[in-house]
Amino acid sequence: MSSNNAIVLKKYIDPTEGYPKIGEHFGLEERPFNLEATKVDEEHPLLLRNIYTSIDPYIRIRMQNPKYKSYLPSLGINQVIPNLTLAEVVKSAVPEHKTGSHVIFMSGWEEYTLVPKQAMGMVQSVNNPYNLPLMTFVGALGMPSQTAYIGLKHIGQPKAGETIYVSAASGAVGQVVGQLAKAMGLYVVGSAGSDEKIAHLKEIGYDAVFNYKKESVHEALPRVCPKGIDIYFENVGGETLDAVLLNANFHARIIFCGCISQYNNPNPYGLKNYSQILTKSIKVEGFIVMNLMPLYQEEYFREMPKLIAEGKLKYKYDVYMGLGSIPEGFLAVLQGNNFGKALSKIADE
Amino acid sequence: MSSNNAIVLKKYIDPTEGYPKIGEHFGLEERPFNLEATKVDEEHPLLLRNIYTSIDPYIRIRMQNPKYKSYLPSLGINQVIPNLTLAEVVKSAVPEHKTGSHVIFMSGWEEYTLVPKQAMGMVQSVNNPYNLPLMTFVGALGMPSQTAYIGLKHIGQPKAGETIYVSAASGAVGQVVGQLAKAMGLYVVGSAGSDEKIAHLKEIGYDAVFNYKKESVHEALPRVCPKGIDIYFENVGGETLDAVLLNANFHARIIFCGCISQYNNPNPYGLKNYSQILTKSIKVEGFIVMNLMPLYQEEYFREMPKLIAEGKLKYKYDVYMGLGSIPEGFLAVLQGNNFGKALSKIADE
Repeated sequence: MSSNNAIVLKKYIDPTEGYPKIGEHFGLEERPFNLEATKVDEEHPLLLRNIYTSIDPYIRIRMQNPKYKSYLPSLGINQVIPNLTLAEVVKSAVPEHKTGSHVIFMSGWEEYTLVPKQAMGMVQSVNNPYNLPLMTFVGALGMPSQTAYIGLKHIGQPKAGETIYVSAASGAVGQVVGQLAKAMGLYVVGSAGSDEKIAHLKEIGYDAVFNYKKESVHEALPRVCPKGIDIYFENVGGETLDAVLLNANFHARIIFCGCISQYNNPNPYGLKNYSQILTKSIKVEGFIVMNLMPLYQEEYFREMPKLIAEGKLKYKYDVYMGLGSIPEGFLAVLQGNNFGKALSKIADE
Repeated sequence: MSSNNAIVLKKYIDPTEGYPKIGEHFGLEERPFNLEATKVDEEHPLLLRNIYTSIDPYIRIRMQNPKYKSYLPSLGINQVIPNLTLAEVVKSAVPEHKTGSHVIFMSGWEEYTLVPKQAMGMVQSVNNPYNLPLMTFVGALGMPSQTAYIGLKHIGQPKAGETIYVSAASGAVGQVVGQLAKAMGLYVVGSAGSDEKIAHLKEIGYDAVFNYKKESVHEALPRVCPKGIDIYFENVGGETLDAVLLNANFHARIIFCGCISQYNNPNPYGLKNYSQILTKSIKVEGFIVMNLMPLYQEEYFREMPKLIAEGKLKYKYDVYMGLGSIPEGFLAVLQGNNFGKALSKIADE
């Protein structure tokens, strides 16, 4: 008998309760599994062996009690935690996914996943003409990069020569935004909270950077954006957004992607400069990448793998080895202790 | 000798100084004028006789000291105050504007205007197939209606069945927004600050209304917008905007047209709920109608005069008789004491 162990939600956590505790709120569940006896059929057309799975901070929102409304539904108690995963098809009842082929699916933090027919529309075949490492499909091509690409290109409408400022620039989204914007001919400015991160931003091509823990955003922005800000990729909210509004140019676009300073803040920062939206004809737009990806999927997988294959998009990984290491990796992500994109290698390729 | 009297700016006013004073900051200047001796030529191709002129609150911004930056440049001291005006061509050196024809131009608060060649591109011929009253061209078809039309249609992207909420709904912009939205099949909700204004909103077709001086916007919105808010036509800012963000639907659009609660507020209201922009994929867009009007002018003058001729757009006027009554009318506008669109009849048709 083999196993199909999983990381499951054990208890809901309140928004203000801080970090989830391993064992109490979530943790490993040991599940015996008979691989040979497990059948695929019309109701469950695919059995997947999960190889690489993404570890993303937004999962924290799905661990909340459903009484707290958010943009994503809460998980059920004892539910396996789902996240974007690269998997091998080990049994198939459908011709479009052959045994031995690879797919991307929200199967999540477990060893094997039996896909119900209702979810088959979400299973995506891996097409890999540049022969990229398989982890790329949940890493450099995963959801943070999709967020960066769609936000920058389709919300931001960038034009060569414009100035873009990216907060949380060394994060999984910010790194990609900066490199894509640079490739589009923009002047790229970023901020992060440590000298190590700042050094990394320079390495990947940011034109100007500052450490927001050493210099206030109000002081820094006029210096690092001498021509003002045309596009702001918003990841943090709060005082940073206020300073951006003051330094924004006429017709600036604010790509509202994250608001990490406010998520767990019982005393939200009161934004003061929002009337600049009117006086400068600014556009502010929030978006959720899962809703927009179907529109841009074909274009994304045509353009991005090529950029990666050509070495034009550098990408750092933090790989957690084995299913059992996922909880530790997830806490590191929530605490900002990881540097590259966190993922777990659950099984051998 | 006839006269070309004018209302001129006499002294700049600070943003926090309250209302401008007649005589001190602006007032009537008596100017003798020889109509017969005044010639048109290549440098000054048109002489206009001003008949109806608009009286708009945004002029307050142009009376500020240039050291205060705003979205419109300050006027010069002793400059005639410009505003949208319906005029008759009395002398012409160009074939496209015949003597006796009518034009719309930013000639402003004076009896006669000699148009320099640099400004000729701004002179617009009046085309009046529905034989509307001439004051309509600076009234029901003037800048507030242009703001309402372009903001609602091209920023708001309304769909039949959606809910729109309009603050300052009885203002020159809000009245038109409500009627246009109703004609487009929306559920139209508005707020105003007196029972008389509320009664008027019901008369012109608002589906639900509330008096924000009697019921807080936080209490009222869930009641008057039972299906949530899809479009918000923002004229006031502050707490109202915060309440709207909480009651907004996924993919809501906020047409950021005015922020009157904050213009003269030394302690700006700190907006708390802006992270809703992210979690609900909201789009917030500021715009200045003068910049967008060239794009939509043809469409606007094709659609709006027809609606007015058919009686589908009701419009109230407050007409101040004679150039000398303009300062009084302007103060009434700033103090919110006028009800309909304020304009002045400077001369007979």
